[in-house]
Amino acid sequence: MKIEPRLSRGLRDLLPQAAMARRQLIGKVRAVYENYGFSPLETPAVEYLDILSGSAGEEAQQSIFRVVNPEEEALGLRFDLTVPLSRVVSRYAQIELPFRRYQLAQVWRADKPQPGRFRQFTQFDIDSVGAPSEIADTEILAVICDALDAVEAGPYKVKFSSRKILDLLLRYAGIGEDLAADVFRVLDKLDKLGLEKVKKELTAGYEDESGAPVRGLGLASAQVSKIEDFLSITGDTRGEVLKTLGGEFRDVAGSGEQLAAVESISSHLDTLGYRSDRVMLDLGIARGLAYYTGPVFEAVLLDAPQFGSVFGGGRYDDLVSRFGGPPVPATGASLGVDRLLAALEHLGKVSQRKTTAQVFVSTMDRALMSEYLQIAFELRRAGIRTEINVGRPKKLGKQLQRADRLEIPYVLIMGADEAARGMVTVKEMEVGRARSSGIAGHEQWKAARFGQQEIPRAALVETLQRLLERPAA
Amino acid sequence: MKIEPRLSRGLRDLLPQAAMARRQLIGKVRAVYENYGFSPLETPAVEYLDILSGSAGEEAQQSIFRVVNPEEEALGLRFDLTVPLSRVVSRYAQIELPFRRYQLAQVWRADKPQPGRFRQFTQFDIDSVGAPSEIADTEILAVICDALDAVEAGPYKVKFSSRKILDLLLRYAGIGEDLAADVFRVLDKLDKLGLEKVKKELTAGYEDESGAPVRGLGLASAQVSKIEDFLSITGDTRGEVLKTLGGEFRDVAGSGEQLAAVESISSHLDTLGYRSDRVMLDLGIARGLAYYTGPVFEAVLLDAPQFGSVFGGGRYDDLVSRFGGPPVPATGASLGVDRLLAALEHLGKVSQRKTTAQVFVSTMDRALMSEYLQIAFELRRAGIRTEINVGRPKKLGKQLQRADRLEIPYVLIMGADEAARGMVTVKEMEVGRARSSGIAGHEQWKAARFGQQEIPRAALVETLQRLLERPAA
Repeated sequence: MKIEPRLSRGLRDLLPQAAMARRQLIGKVRAVYENYGFSPLETPAVEYLDILSGSAGEEAQQSIFRVVNPEEEALGLRFDLTVPLSRVVSRYAQIELPFRRYQLAQVWRADKPQPGRFRQFTQFDIDSVGAPSEIADTEILAVICDALDAVEAGPYKVKFSSRKILDLLLRYAGIGEDLAADVFRVLDKLDKLGLEKVKKELTAGYEDESGAPVRGLGLASAQVSKIEDFLSITGDTRGEVLKTLGGEFRDVAGSGEQLAAVESISSHLDTLGYRSDRVMLDLGIARGLAYYTGPVFEAVLLDAPQFGSVFGGGRYDDLVSRFGGPPVPATGASLGVDRLLAALEHLGKVSQRKTTAQVFVSTMDRALMSEYLQIAFELRRAGIRTEINVGRPKKLGKQLQRADRLEIPYVLIMGADEAARGMVTVKEMEVGRARSSGIAGHEQWKAARFGQQEIPRAALVETLQRLLERPAA
Repeated sequence: MKIEPRLSRGLRDLLPQAAMARRQLIGKVRAVYENYGFSPLETPAVEYLDILSGSAGEEAQQSIFRVVNPEEEALGLRFDLTVPLSRVVSRYAQIELPFRRYQLAQVWRADKPQPGRFRQFTQFDIDSVGAPSEIADTEILAVICDALDAVEAGPYKVKFSSRKILDLLLRYAGIGEDLAADVFRVLDKLDKLGLEKVKKELTAGYEDESGAPVRGLGLASAQVSKIEDFLSITGDTRGEVLKTLGGEFRDVAGSGEQLAAVESISSHLDTLGYRSDRVMLDLGIARGLAYYTGPVFEAVLLDAPQFGSVFGGGRYDDLVSRFGGPPVPATGASLGVDRLLAALEHLGKVSQRKTTAQVFVSTMDRALMSEYLQIAFELRRAGIRTEINVGRPKKLGKQLQRADRLEIPYVLIMGADEAARGMVTVKEMEVGRARSSGIAGHEQWKAARFGQQEIPRAALVETLQRLLERPAA
C-alpha cells in the first residue's frame, strides 16, 4: 500500500541548503547571546493546555495544536517560549534570580496558512527574569542590535516604546483602564492597517475587504484625536521625542516618573553608542500581547520592511506570578528565525552552500577500494570534510556531476595507473564550472589545466589544506 | 487564578547546566558527522498519522502522541527520524542521491514512564540514502566510533551483525520466513532478558513477573537448539567469527554471498584501523525494528553498560519505497543523545558549567552605573562573556554570592574611590572558594590577596583575556 509522502498544511521541510543557512545564522546569534552571559534552557514541546491557554489571547488560544497522550490529558504544543520560561521559573526553587536564559526552539500556531507563514516556526529568545533594573531592558535592546550586526542584516531600526507611556496616553485621552488591552491591541495594527483603519476600529468599527464587520471600541472622536496627537510626536533623536512628549503629558499624573524610566534606558544606550539612528523611540509601537507591562521592543530591516518585525519583545513583570508567588520582573525579546532568514535570503545575504563536504573522493576501480577509503579517512583525520562515493558504482562522469551539483570544491581521481605511480589527481570544480560557463579567460584555462593537477599522494593532505585555506576569489 | 507550573508525565526541562552539557556533546558529534561530509536536514515535528503508523511496529503505534489541528486531520508527533527521512527522499525530486544527511531533533513516544526514560527525547541521526555500497555501512560504523571518541566516552564496543545472517539462520534452523519478524523481535531482547527467557518465548511462552502471559512463537526444540548453537559462536576477531559461521552455515543456500558482504565491511574496517577490539561481529544483535534488511549496528559504553545501546541502526533498503517508486538502499544510525548524556554524567564526564558568563560586573554605586555598563560592553566587545548585575540593587555580598553559585570565574568591583583613581578590582572566585573550603595553602593565601587584585581600568580587557586563557589548574 503506497502512502503519499505529504505534509499537513503550513508545515515544511528544510533541505540541507536551507538547514545549513539556518544553522549559520543561529550560530552567530547564539554567540551574541552568550557574549552577554546568557545560558541555554530547554523545555518540552508539549505543555498542559491550561498553562498555555491561560497566557494566550483569544486568537492565540484557538491556534494551539492540541495533543493527546495515552492518559488523555489536555495538552498542547507551545506557541511561544515566554510561557514555558515563566513556568520554569516558578517550578524550580533552585533557579538563581536573575535568571538569564536563551532558548532556541520550535513553536506551533495553527493559524490560517499564508505564503511565507508557517505553522511550525523557530524562535530564539533571550530573557532576564528577576531583573527590575533598566539595565536589563537596555541590554535586550543592545543584544538585538548586536545580533542584527552579527548576521550582517544591513541597516535596521530597533524601535521601542513603553506600556507605561501608553498608560499615560490613556489618562491623557481620558480612556478607562478597562479598555487598555483592547486599545493596545488595536494600536499594534498601526503598521499593518494604517492610521485610518485603526481610527475606525477605535471608534465605530468598519467592514473589512471581505465584508466582515470589525467591531469598534466606541471611543469618542475627542479621545481619538488625542491619540492622533500622541502618534504624531516624532523627532530625530530619542531625546527630542521625550522632550515633546514630556510637554504634551505635563499635566498627566505620574508622567514625570514614567518618562524618567524611559529616559534612563535612552541615556544608557547613548553611553554605549547605540544612538537614535538605529534605536529609536517610536510611539506607534504597542505589541499585541496582553502580558507586557513596561518597555516594548521591535526591530525591522530597512532593506526588507515587508518581512515585518524580526525581533519583538518587552517587559512582562506579572507573567510569572500566574503560577503563584510574588511578581517577578522580567524583560526579553524573541527573534523570529524563519522571518529573519526569509528577509536575509530576499536580500541575497544567505549562504548558498549545498553540502558540508569540501572534498569528494571518486571511486573508479573496485580493486582500489581500500586505497580510496584510506585517502578519505586520511583527509577526515586531518579535519577536511570529505565524502567518498557510496552510490551505485558509476562512471566517473556521473560522480563528477554529483560533486558539481552539490558544489563540492574538490574531487579526487585515481586510476590504476596513477595509483601505481603514487599520484592522485585533484580536480578543482569551480574552475571546471567557470570554464564551461565561458567566463574564465584563456590564461586561467592554461594555468589550471582545466582545474586539474596531479600531485603525489603523500602531499595530498597538505595540498588540500592549502587550497581550502585560500580566500575565495 | 493560580495555575500549577507542572509538566505532564515523562516530560522534563533542561536547566542551563544540563542544556550546556548537551550543547557541548552535540557540537562534538556534529563535527564528526560533518567531517564525513553529511549535511543537516530539518523536518516538522508533526506528521500525518498514516505516514508514522505505517512504518511503526504495533508497540510504536500505540505510543504515538496524537495531534489535532483546526482541520481535525489525523496527525501525530514523529517517533523517530528515519520515517520522516524516507518521506523526504520520496517527496523531493531535486534531492541528489546518495542523500547523506544528519538530523538532530526531538522525538516523542508515550511509553510507560520509567526512571531515566522520557517521553520526549533527542535523536541525532546520520544516514546515507541511495547508498548500496558496503562502504556506506563501513562509514556508519566508523562514524559511531569517531563520535564516541570525540565525546571521550571511554572504552566502548560497537557491535554489528546482519539481517542477512539472521535470514541464513532461519534457513539453517528450518524456520519459515513468515516468522522472521517475530523471531528477530524476540532475539533483540537477548541482552535485556537473557537466553532462558528468550528460549521460552521462542517456544511455549511464559509468565512474566507480574503474572502476565508472554506468548511463545511455538518453535520446536530442535530449531531452538540450532539458534543456540548459532548464538554461541564467538571469537576474538571478526575474522574468527566469520570463519566459524561459514563452517556452520556451509550447507545453507546463499551463505557464501551473504557472508562475503559482511566480510567486506569487516575488511574495510581493518584497512581503516577499526579493529575487533572496538567493532565486533556479535551474532546476538538483531534490532527490534521491522524495517532493517542488512547490517545492523549497536554501541554500548563498557564502563556504563546499564545504560544500554547509545547508538543503534542498520540498513533499510525497502523503507523509502513505501511512498512509491523503486527501492532505495539506505543505511544509518541514530544516537540516543539523552542516553549517552546520562551515561557520561554517570561516569563524571560531563561539564558542570552553570553559566556561559566568564566575568560578572558588580554594581555598588548607582552614580557609577554608566561606568559599569561601559566596562561590561568593553569586555563583551573583546569577546569576553560578561554578565552585569541586572537584579535588585543589592549589597556586594549578595552579588558575590550569585557569582559564586553560578561559578562565574571573575567578579569586577569598583567603588567611587577606585573609579576616581581609574582602578578596578578583579576578584578571582575560585581562589575565594578554595580559601573558604580550607584547601588552599598559606602561600596561595598571601599571593592571591584573597584572590583579589586592583588593576588599572585601561588594562582590564588585556588582564582578563590573559587570566581566562590560563590553563585550568
